Amino acid sequence: MTTTREDCLALDAADPLAPLRAAFVLPEGVIYLDGNSLGALPSVTPARLVQVVQHEWGTGLIRSWNSAGWITLAQRIGDKIAALVGAGAGELIVADSTSVNLYKVLKSAVLLGAPSATRRFIVSERSNFPTDLYIADSVAREHGLELKLVDADTLGAQLNDDVAVLMLTQVNYRTGRLHDMAAITSAAHAAGALVVWDLCHSAGALPVDLTGADADFAVGCGYKYLNGGPGAPAFVWAHPRHTARMDREQLRQPLAGWLGHAAPFAFTSDYRPALGIQRFVCGTPALLSMAALECGVDVFAQAEAHGGLAALRRKSNALTALFVELVEARCAGHGLTLVTPREAAQRGSQVSFAHPNGYAIMQALIARGVIGDFRAGGAGAPDSSDLLRFGFTPLYTRFVDAWDAVDQLHLVIASGEWRDARFGQRAAVT
Amino acid sequence: MTTTREDCLALDAADPLAPLRAAFVLPEGVIYLDGNSLGALPSVTPARLVQVVQHEWGTGLIRSWNSAGWITLAQRIGDKIAALVGAGAGELIVADSTSVNLYKVLKSAVLLGAPSATRRFIVSERSNFPTDLYIADSVAREHGLELKLVDADTLGAQLNDDVAVLMLTQVNYRTGRLHDMAAITSAAHAAGALVVWDLCHSAGALPVDLTGADADFAVGCGYKYLNGGPGAPAFVWAHPRHTARMDREQLRQPLAGWLGHAAPFAFTSDYRPALGIQRFVCGTPALLSMAALECGVDVFAQAEAHGGLAALRRKSNALTALFVELVEARCAGHGLTLVTPREAAQRGSQVSFAHPNGYAIMQALIARGVIGDFRAGGAGAPDSSDLLRFGFTPLYTRFVDAWDAVDQLHLVIASGEWRDARFGQRAAVT
Repeated sequence: MTTTREDCLALDAADPLAPLRAAFVLPEGVIYLDGNSLGALPSVTPARLVQVVQHEWGTGLIRSWNSAGWITLAQRIGDKIAALVGAGAGELIVADSTSVNLYKVLKSAVLLGAPSATRRFIVSERSNFPTDLYIADSVAREHGLELKLVDADTLGAQLNDDVAVLMLTQVNYRTGRLHDMAAITSAAHAAGALVVWDLCHSAGALPVDLTGADADFAVGCGYKYLNGGPGAPAFVWAHPRHTARMDREQLRQPLAGWLGHAAPFAFTSDYRPALGIQRFVCGTPALLSMAALECGVDVFAQAEAHGGLAALRRKSNALTALFVELVEARCAGHGLTLVTPREAAQRGSQVSFAHPNGYAIMQALIARGVIGDFRAGGAGAPDSSDLLRFGFTPLYTRFVDAWDAVDQLHLVIASGEWRDARFGQRAAVT
Repeated sequence: MTTTREDCLALDAADPLAPLRAAFVLPEGVIYLDGNSLGALPSVTPARLVQVVQHEWGTGLIRSWNSAGWITLAQRIGDKIAALVGAGAGELIVADSTSVNLYKVLKSAVLLGAPSATRRFIVSERSNFPTDLYIADSVAREHGLELKLVDADTLGAQLNDDVAVLMLTQVNYRTGRLHDMAAITSAAHAAGALVVWDLCHSAGALPVDLTGADADFAVGCGYKYLNGGPGAPAFVWAHPRHTARMDREQLRQPLAGWLGHAAPFAFTSDYRPALGIQRFVCGTPALLSMAALECGVDVFAQAEAHGGLAALRRKSNALTALFVELVEARCAGHGLTLVTPREAAQRGSQVSFAHPNGYAIMQALIARGVIGDFRAGGAGAPDSSDLLRFGFTPLYTRFVDAWDAVDQLHLVIASGEWRDARFGQRAAVT
């Protein structure tokens, strides 16, 4: 028997994480299932930003670099994110965008991994997020390497002694498939390759253990499951064995900006990289966006009292399983094909369905206040399916939201409402 | 006869730009002469940020990339900054930090300039801001070039056929010396070199004419004279002849992130650079910091009604001249040596004095509410002078502020107050 709306209300009533929803501002009349594109607004963020702007900037002015701790903010937030991804304090830092950080770590991996004439590939997944592939291709070109794209299923067979660096996103942005970080890292190391993990769709969504997996480098995004606000600064991590070697050999990542200098305020004309992860900082950080990111990350400290990431993962699995069950039960026969793994352990915190009219269906759904997103397939795309993508953020998504979203999806798809011409025009961002 | 405080009040009363001060929030009891490190807070910024956070992010959520124009914000602000630096609409864009943008344009300049075995130097000024030198050195190392540092006075003689790229900051961060952009660019071009200009201390401080000077590339900072807030995103400009050639030949800058793609939302796995300056965008921009930057830049639209940058430059020259006159008249015999050019046409909007006890003097001055800053000389620094640095922002600095600042400086220096032990400890950021 299909789960009823009343069942969902009962699940919410029994949910130990339910109180965390109050830590967010969510608009009336909206079911938000796109926290994997842009996380929702934490309740404390507006007041904190006003404080930073009016008090720290307006009144403190330049003095706030010291008095308000701006100069150490990247490391302070970095330590908080480190705790969410299995990294040690001082090993991870907030800086720049995911794309810029990827460039830094890929250049470092190439530098440290010493690729040779035979070890000449950067390997990644064909359907990895495009910016990862663009940056990897750019780094490969600069170093006479080649970017080799493979399908997730054949990955293991590709890890040979011709691989210099393996770069993967832990949770695929299209399918929601979750890679086994420990197993893949181990296999890559056995083949003599370094591994770079992109945690954009996993940091804050599920427990991540970079140290346990013995990974080499990682980057990730502040504006998805960390709820740091639009374009929030990203983060970068390097295993201490690499930063220690870089320390010893004075190796730089190429974006050698002044705030990655060992003594930035000595204003010396020669670059001497800071010890540890600090050398992955380049220019002056976007402080206002950083302050908002800290508010988002701090919600996870509240979540600790409710079981933390382990509890969030359990709820996430329950939400995504419920959504799959309801869509398949209520929307059967309407051409929706699940592309996310059915096995909870193999998926992140999203569910994607393929549908040839995915764009219009998602537009019609958004018009009804159910916000997911659409990812195009087709020519030039990694696969040909147009996807409806639904993200579940266990910090604020309720079981009844999943039920109501499927109710609306059924209505849109069964009525043919999506065929209305107004849902056919593609906007810039979808 | 020395200018009196009453004279200064009269100058303020007659100042056509005086009403613009109301566009800023300035703390009581502070004379702020450090707008060349961090510009003051525009009055409209707090409310605008609350709107962006609560309405655009909180309520609009992911939809705001289209509905609130987030996706085009970098170009919208870029066009406004372009108007301040003599660039055309669509030629300049906001992105990342100055350091990251320098890397992009230096890599592009090396790509386009085709350095050879003989044309093997990136040339810059010995006392250029360190991050510029670090990034240039990094790019030089990557391409088998060498960074050659020269003194400003000998620059002309160094522009030979061994120079691939000349990279200069238009206004020196230490001395305030202003380079003649048109003459130097012309001389560099005559020698076959490309020229990269850093406008950190000139954009918003004085009229800049990139097009008139026929410059090749430029970068600049959003948080100094543009009043965009701490760590505000930076900007990048390329002459249309270069972007056109990059378009034709599909040349990339290496930070080839997804928002520099010709069709970012097609999510194709191969990178195809966007036309024009858009290819210098890399990852997702820090939207909250961008929104604050726009508020700062918009003050210049208000300034247009009062004579614009030409009027701001006249006032800036008058303020800096007044400050030099007053310091030399009232603090004579106390070891202060002017390092900024006396000729107004040769300086930016700051005045620097060398003093062996500059650090403690500035700390004592700051304790009295006069905020300038200190730049260390000594071992490893480009010259051995410790500098007291005073920035004048004609949008909000009054003539009476210059008078009162010198009054306090005289008091600190003549009384020996700066010898107090509490002014001797150097903090992280000075």
